[in-house]
Amino acid sequence: MAAVSFEDIRKAGLRIHTYIHRTPVLTCKSLDEMSGASLFFKCENFQRAGAFKYRGACNAVFSLTEAEAERGVTTHSSGNHAGALARAASIRGIPAFVVMPENAPSVKVAAVRGYGAEITFCKPTLAAREETLEAVVARTGATFIHPYDNPNVIAGQGTVALELISEAGDLNVVMAPVGGGGLLSGTAISTKTLLPQAQVFGAEPEQADDAYCSFKRGVFVPSVNPDTIADGLLTSLGELTFPLIRQFVDDILTVSENGIKAAMELIWERMKIVVEPSSAVPLAAVFEHPEFFYKKRVGVILSGGNVDLNRLPWTGVM
Amino acid sequence: MAAVSFEDIRKAGLRIHTYIHRTPVLTCKSLDEMSGASLFFKCENFQRAGAFKYRGACNAVFSLTEAEAERGVTTHSSGNHAGALARAASIRGIPAFVVMPENAPSVKVAAVRGYGAEITFCKPTLAAREETLEAVVARTGATFIHPYDNPNVIAGQGTVALELISEAGDLNVVMAPVGGGGLLSGTAISTKTLLPQAQVFGAEPEQADDAYCSFKRGVFVPSVNPDTIADGLLTSLGELTFPLIRQFVDDILTVSENGIKAAMELIWERMKIVVEPSSAVPLAAVFEHPEFFYKKRVGVILSGGNVDLNRLPWTGVM
Repeated sequence: MAAVSFEDIRKAGLRIHTYIHRTPVLTCKSLDEMSGASLFFKCENFQRAGAFKYRGACNAVFSLTEAEAERGVTTHSSGNHAGALARAASIRGIPAFVVMPENAPSVKVAAVRGYGAEITFCKPTLAAREETLEAVVARTGATFIHPYDNPNVIAGQGTVALELISEAGDLNVVMAPVGGGGLLSGTAISTKTLLPQAQVFGAEPEQADDAYCSFKRGVFVPSVNPDTIADGLLTSLGELTFPLIRQFVDDILTVSENGIKAAMELIWERMKIVVEPSSAVPLAAVFEHPEFFYKKRVGVILSGGNVDLNRLPWTGVM
Repeated sequence: MAAVSFEDIRKAGLRIHTYIHRTPVLTCKSLDEMSGASLFFKCENFQRAGAFKYRGACNAVFSLTEAEAERGVTTHSSGNHAGALARAASIRGIPAFVVMPENAPSVKVAAVRGYGAEITFCKPTLAAREETLEAVVARTGATFIHPYDNPNVIAGQGTVALELISEAGDLNVVMAPVGGGGLLSGTAISTKTLLPQAQVFGAEPEQADDAYCSFKRGVFVPSVNPDTIADGLLTSLGELTFPLIRQFVDDILTVSENGIKAAMELIWERMKIVVEPSSAVPLAAVFEHPEFFYKKRVGVILSGGNVDLNRLPWTGVM
């Protein structure tokens, strides 16, 4: 039996709906013309804390028992999950303990601190992160909420596609970017239940193609030295997400760095919205693999909008 | 009697509503917290052709008789009005003749050409523009549609506030940026009719404060050597717009260049939407003149989203 069921996602939707934004689904005539497809963009860049991660974090935080909740939650992350978890914890009124690498961008540190979390800094290695996290758990008794390899987190992320499909109706394809696979596996479970005929694709940078390799070979391949501007997609698949992706996802499509930059600029220029590079990966796949999308109704999940406005790929000052 | 009435605006709304986007009204919790006001942002950056200008252009184009329409429309502009008019003309299926200065940004030229307009280039002086325009009118018989000093254009721009108020409900203040005054005068007429108790403010860069000076002195003061990043607000008030602004606007507030840049960056960062510098001028006024806004319900018109992504004020490559 799968680690997460559609029923878990449906319950997650009921649990979190008062805390999250029901984000809009936008269309864009000029992008439709350029792609030859009908694109339905689910705008999680407008989600609270700036990314879909807030859904999974909320579902995990509000699934805790009272006794667990009192001791708080903890995670290690330098990205959107840390901010999302800190904010969800503050909404429930419980402590959050976040382990961050000492070289984390100051803007991310400020965001996590702004939500009232206690930050513990560590050396920027996975070993140091895990060791520091263990010490925090030993000291506080807080519940560790993994950024993606956690059933409640996956179920929360699955609510994105739930809303997308309820608004856009019948779709031929639904696509999400893939990093650790929380969003993609949740998306696949929802889509295959609600639209059994639809295809589900993951979109991944060529230069961080561990999910692609894992999917094609059928064995877990870790992410080694990923090198992409899509900084939300650097991580490896998890023990829960990899089997879900094998079971429910039709294919993973990889895209070039230039394709990601161009797609990101097109979204900003034509849709007038701010998205982070990871969000542009599915649209890049539409342009680089047109055979899968031509004349199709395609749901595209824009995963987040947390980008450093001082370091944009097209200004040459990344 | 005023050159434009509320009835004209109401009719404009009926005339253009199938051609325009009914743009969303967005709120942003963090900007409310920072300002101490309740802000309702009317997002004309999502309007077709990227700015509110499309409303006025549509109303002018669809107000022409069949005989007039056959001969087409013309204007001189290097900004949003040219693209808006070209697009509106293409929708009605009539010719558009646009006079542009030979140093116009190539992206604006491409946009106007993309809508199928015929472009005539001229030297970058007002005299050359007017002379070239006269020659175009003599040759084609096209109707000149002034970017703001035209009753149909003003009535079209007034539909922005019509929609804003119908969606946001009771507001204490409604604010628009002021350049030539088409948007501000239309906004004022709608607001004073629908919400007689509400105040209407224009917001203007200190370094392009001709509307402020005209308003305070009660005599027309032209715009001389304006120097602002808000490149939509360089022009002088018109013969129609100045009297309307004197009659219906409560005050004009000026803001610093740094205030405009900071407000623009805040809108991008917190709201995750792309706006041009002119759009940020009213929010800059909220922060620089808090006494007018504290604890008030404030409608803020975001005028457009046509910005060169390669030249952003905060990347130092303007």
